[in-house]
Amino acid sequence: MLDLFPEAEKPVDIIPAKKLSARAAALYVAPADHFQTRPVDELRLGFDGISGDFHAGSTRRSGGREPWYPRGTEMRNERQLSLVAADELAIIAQHMGLEEIRPEWIGANLLVEGVPHLSMLPAGSLLFFKGGVTIKIDAQNKPCRIAGQSIAEHVRAADQDATALLFPKVAKRLRGLVAWVEKPGIIRAGEEISVRVSEQWTYQA
Amino acid sequence: MLDLFPEAEKPVDIIPAKKLSARAAALYVAPADHFQTRPVDELRLGFDGISGDFHAGSTRRSGGREPWYPRGTEMRNERQLSLVAADELAIIAQHMGLEEIRPEWIGANLLVEGVPHLSMLPAGSLLFFKGGVTIKIDAQNKPCRIAGQSIAEHVRAADQDATALLFPKVAKRLRGLVAWVEKPGIIRAGEEISVRVSEQWTYQA
Repeated sequence: MLDLFPEAEKPVDIIPAKKLSARAAALYVAPADHFQTRPVDELRLGFDGISGDFHAGSTRRSGGREPWYPRGTEMRNERQLSLVAADELAIIAQHMGLEEIRPEWIGANLLVEGVPHLSMLPAGSLLFFKGGVTIKIDAQNKPCRIAGQSIAEHVRAADQDATALLFPKVAKRLRGLVAWVEKPGIIRAGEEISVRVSEQWTYQA
Repeated sequence: MLDLFPEAEKPVDIIPAKKLSARAAALYVAPADHFQTRPVDELRLGFDGISGDFHAGSTRRSGGREPWYPRGTEMRNERQLSLVAADELAIIAQHMGLEEIRPEWIGANLLVEGVPHLSMLPAGSLLFFKGGVTIKIDAQNKPCRIAGQSIAEHVRAADQDATALLFPKVAKRLRGLVAWVEKPGIIRAGEEISVRVSEQWTYQA
C-alpha cells in the first residue's frame, strides 16, 4: 500500500536563549612571560584581549589543543580570556586530594559567580558586563598538563609528575571556558554580569 | 525516612565531535559598497575576512541583530563570511513561490555542498579547506528584510514589500551560517572541505 502521508521530518527541538545573572567575583592578569595570573582590581580589554596580558593578541600560535595544525601555526586568538568558577575548582581539588586550587595557579582571568556548571555554558553565549564590556564564549577550556604542573608546584606535591598528570584527567568539563572580546572596555572586580545563554539544539547529520 | 543514597546529579549526555565531507561548490564576493555578491573563482582570506569584501574587517558596526547595543556600536566582526546551501535556498524559494533564490542575491560568499541542514551546524564547528584555510562557525545567520528586498528586486515581485517581508519569516533556520577566519589563505571554487562538527550537549542552568 502506498503511504500517501509520509511522516514529515521530525522537527528540531529548540531550547530558547535565556538570561542568567552572574558576577565577576575576582579578576586576574598574567603580567609577565608566564601564563600564571595575579589578582587585580580591573581588567582593561581591547579587541586584542586583556591589555598587557600573556594571552593578549589578535592571533596566537597553535599548540596541543589543535592537533590538526603543525605546532606554532598562526591562527585567530579565540582564547583571550580564561573563565573559571569556584565550585568547579573545588571539585577538581577534591578529586586531586588538595585543599584548594586557586584561579591564579591555572592562569584564570575571571572568577565567575552565579552560573551553574559554568564549564558547560554553550559556545556563543554572551557575557554583558554592567560597565559596558561584552565577551563571547568560544569553548570549554581543555585542561592541560602545564596547568597541572603549576598546581603541583604550588601545593609542593610529593610526586610532581603524578599531580601534574592528574589535573587533565579530573578537570575535564570543570576547568572553565575561554572567551574573546566582542566589545572592549574596563571590567571591575565585583561587577554584575548578564549572561545570555545561546539558543540550543542538537545537530544530527 | 532519611534518603541515605540521594540520587546523583544526572550526567550530561555528550554527543562526540564528528567529521563530514563537504565541498565549496561556488564562491562569491561583494566587491562594492553593497552586500550583494558575484561569483568568483577564489576567495583570498586574511584574519580580517575576505580581502576587498563588503563585510571584511576585524570589527564592524552593530545593527538590528544586536538589539542590546545602540545601533552603530563598534564590535568584533564575527560575520566575515556568509555560508548557504542550495537545498535550503530551494526550500525558502518554494515557501516564497519563487523559482529560485541565488546566493548572490542575499550576499552569500560560500555555497556549501554536502552538509545536511547546513543552517543547523553548531557554533564552533570548523571547516578545514583542503588548501589550508580554516573558518569557524559563529552562528546561524538570521534572515533580514534587506536580503528580502534584494530578492524582491531580482524577481521583480509585484508587491516588493510583501516579498521582502516574507523572507525573514520563511528563511528562519534555512539562511545558512556566518563564520570568521581562523587560518587565512586562498579558497578555490570546488575545493574539498573537512567539516569538524563540534561536541554537543544540552546546558541546563
